[in-house]
Amino acid sequence: MQDPSPFASTPEPPYYAVIFSSTRRDADPGYAAMAARMVELASAQPGFLGVESSRDADGFGITVSYWVSLAAIAAWKSNVEHLAAQQAGRQSWYGHYALRIARVERAYAFDASGDATA
Amino acid sequence: MQDPSPFASTPEPPYYAVIFSSTRRDADPGYAAMAARMVELASAQPGFLGVESSRDADGFGITVSYWVSLAAIAAWKSNVEHLAAQQAGRQSWYGHYALRIARVERAYAFDASGDATA
Repeated sequence: MQDPSPFASTPEPPYYAVIFSSTRRDADPGYAAMAARMVELASAQPGFLGVESSRDADGFGITVSYWVSLAAIAAWKSNVEHLAAQQAGRQSWYGHYALRIARVERAYAFDASGDATA
Repeated sequence: MQDPSPFASTPEPPYYAVIFSSTRRDADPGYAAMAARMVELASAQPGFLGVESSRDADGFGITVSYWVSLAAIAAWKSNVEHLAAQQAGRQSWYGHYALRIARVERAYAFDASGDATA
């Protein structure tokens, strides 16, 4: 079951973001299961704050995960099951990807129901 | 005509990212033209480095634009035509959005053709 909101609930900055942009290679039925498992696994990592993800009809996707610290990101990067998924991603799933680690300094939100917060 | 690559060509960090996550309200034929115009306008701003954007079949999208500095982001935010689009976005286009400004500190890329760079 998917989370009903695609937005991550993050605290006041500062915190960190991992911006992962990618194109898929040929459709692989194992990919969706792996991606769901990685979200499950990341969510259980210390320092995980949330994740947002979108992939368009052309196969270009952006996933942004949010973390309390660079140390939390480093620990997630070296998680054994995640390492195996990273290798499979390079071998089979991704045509190209870019990964950027960034420190979130300011955040704003808007909701059409009338709730705008800075 | 669209750029053939959905990836932004960014320099070595540090630089800045504006992470814009949003859900659309009802389909509006004016939206696509506005979005394309904003990319065109942003690309002409001083300090613009590139943009990556994805919107999925459920209407959840992530756009990340890259900039040389916070000052360049502030100038873009206050661009008159962009201000009008921001207002239209809140009035008509977006159900909810989150906007985060982050300083990119590290970046990696991978290409299945064999080119992996850190």
